Amino acid sequence: MIYFDNAATTKPFEEVVEAFSTFSKDFYFNPSSLHLGGIKVAKKIEETRVFVAEKMNILPEELFFISGATEGNNTVLKSVFNFIKTDEKIVVSPIEHKSIREICKMPNYNPHVTFLDVDKYGKIRLETLKDKIDKKSKLLSFIAVNNETGVLQNISEVVKEARRINPDILIHVDGVQWFAKCGFDIGSLDIDFFSASAHKIHGLKGVGILYKKKGRYLHPLIIGGGQEKGIRSGTENSGAIFSLGVALDIFYKKREIFSKKMEELSGYFEGKIKNLDFILLNRGQNDNFSPYIFSLTHKYIPASVMLNALSEKGIYVSTGSACNEKSGGKNQVLEALGFSDYDIMRTFRVSFSVFNEKEEIDRFVDTILDIDKELGLFYRKVSKK
Amino acid sequence: MIYFDNAATTKPFEEVVEAFSTFSKDFYFNPSSLHLGGIKVAKKIEETRVFVAEKMNILPEELFFISGATEGNNTVLKSVFNFIKTDEKIVVSPIEHKSIREICKMPNYNPHVTFLDVDKYGKIRLETLKDKIDKKSKLLSFIAVNNETGVLQNISEVVKEARRINPDILIHVDGVQWFAKCGFDIGSLDIDFFSASAHKIHGLKGVGILYKKKGRYLHPLIIGGGQEKGIRSGTENSGAIFSLGVALDIFYKKREIFSKKMEELSGYFEGKIKNLDFILLNRGQNDNFSPYIFSLTHKYIPASVMLNALSEKGIYVSTGSACNEKSGGKNQVLEALGFSDYDIMRTFRVSFSVFNEKEEIDRFVDTILDIDKELGLFYRKVSKK
Repeated sequence: MIYFDNAATTKPFEEVVEAFSTFSKDFYFNPSSLHLGGIKVAKKIEETRVFVAEKMNILPEELFFISGATEGNNTVLKSVFNFIKTDEKIVVSPIEHKSIREICKMPNYNPHVTFLDVDKYGKIRLETLKDKIDKKSKLLSFIAVNNETGVLQNISEVVKEARRINPDILIHVDGVQWFAKCGFDIGSLDIDFFSASAHKIHGLKGVGILYKKKGRYLHPLIIGGGQEKGIRSGTENSGAIFSLGVALDIFYKKREIFSKKMEELSGYFEGKIKNLDFILLNRGQNDNFSPYIFSLTHKYIPASVMLNALSEKGIYVSTGSACNEKSGGKNQVLEALGFSDYDIMRTFRVSFSVFNEKEEIDRFVDTILDIDKELGLFYRKVSKK
Repeated sequence: MIYFDNAATTKPFEEVVEAFSTFSKDFYFNPSSLHLGGIKVAKKIEETRVFVAEKMNILPEELFFISGATEGNNTVLKSVFNFIKTDEKIVVSPIEHKSIREICKMPNYNPHVTFLDVDKYGKIRLETLKDKIDKKSKLLSFIAVNNETGVLQNISEVVKEARRINPDILIHVDGVQWFAKCGFDIGSLDIDFFSASAHKIHGLKGVGILYKKKGRYLHPLIIGGGQEKGIRSGTENSGAIFSLGVALDIFYKKREIFSKKMEELSGYFEGKIKNLDFILLNRGQNDNFSPYIFSLTHKYIPASVMLNALSEKGIYVSTGSACNEKSGGKNQVLEALGFSDYDIMRTFRVSFSVFNEKEEIDRFVDTILDIDKELGLFYRKVSKK
């Protein structure tokens, strides 16, 4: 089996599963309990917090463990929306993940939303920020690496320009496809909030991180026992938190090896794909892209057909964000990018991890050629563009 | 080590950790992905849903997997509070878990809260429901087994009386300490919502269940990719969900053995404690109690001292709900029950699991006697009641 759907979720590192198992057996105590068992677990969580915060170049007290980035995105957006004044706005890119977009669609929030301009691949047009942000802009939220196209925003430049226009604007970055894969250092980004999920970096599902700059206010989404300093109540998912530290440790220690590997892998993939004249590679020359995510359009074969044909041959790709696939509707990110309906129907996503190898890319390309040989003629006939 | 803090969290069954590990290695795919890997995981989740729903005597479509009961309680309460009309009320017991109480305290919600009358151990006074519920009561929410005293509500009687007064009232039961330990059948309870956590029944942290009766509306707390039919967005915690099924399977298959064991264990404990004249057992003759939770008051020694002394000797108990312990404030549940400040300071909780044995109770009682011998004289002198 070839797994090219790593933007949807990644296979946990063996060390992660191992660490979780051991932790669940030896450190199952509730970290809020005051006996020695509880104290031991609380210590493990705090050690993980210190470790992760150090890698992120932030203070431990600025880091909160949550159930995942969807919860993080919801927490930040709703916290700001709930206290927004009549004339204030929230500025977002039109290609956000659904956990941002769906909130912005809510009837009571929608009138407060301003959408940024992006280019064909989703890169924020820096020169248009001055038309979108003003003194009444309360929050700017954008995705660092788009989960459909892989476009990589120039976070620092966007932040700098936004702060030049409105020094008081709050800035949230959805770092799900960025964190650990493209960078660790949040502290130098001059942002206020940041969310990410462990399961996208070979950690476990059900846990993620939320950064809140010291001094910034965040209204908790889930309240109760006051865990995570009141920012996220509910018994801590301690084993998953601990194993998030294990995943990050691997990513951090191997960051240069991984970075080099992904550069080679993505370069190799790009070269091979460019030889296929019936496949469009949705990447511009002038933008930066994550080496982990590729958007491809087959000129004739529908993506659903392609996905199933590949799946039957043991190659797993997706038609787009996993969070979109089952809704059945049109891919709204690609639509916002100006893709035609025809192209949207034929666009699929290939997303890599550090576990992938060049041989898998060879087999993928061979299989694409086989599928094109098998089905291409038919779809060339029926697809009248 | 003797673990008597099972109301805070339980040790996962070995089968649960084993199942999770295997699942994480073989079924790590995103269940929203449309390739064969994703479909396999989605199938596992749906099989778990069917299995759990069957045991709960509800429809699979009425069951939603969430991150835990705190999230469940928040979802139900906020959904109702957010759409409440000026003259409508939410009726709760004064001894709810903090994930209910803290929401009821919020300034915008608080004016809509009516508190039920309970007896000294937390049992809802059935005869007073008619004074607390009327046609404007939108929701009744109560905890099935109180997590401090172990008092077991007569759910059916409360529901019957509430519906007699207002047939349209929505009813939510916080079943964290009840589910699987005291019962499985939710379908026959004639309630609308129900929440529980897996980690209280030897499952994993970070996963729980939320029941929503067919036809009832629930406004999602976390929105995005539309997972769990839109009730709870965010990548499904699939391995934890699967292992919740494993935990429930064990509880269900062994329900008679477990029930008998806990009856014996709790009876044995009660008998031994009654011989200690310096310990008050906070249980009334006329109420029903869970065999899993005991509230004890030492007449002289402060609970914090007792907890630490026991912890040093390898016996883990708590001063109350884990979600209360670190807040440092007074135990508000015991306060609501009319306990004096003096007694609250000396009350601690012993909570069992099916892993506990009579020999552990013997050692606990011997240790209590030792501690009393060691410290009792001093505290008898300083404690002027």
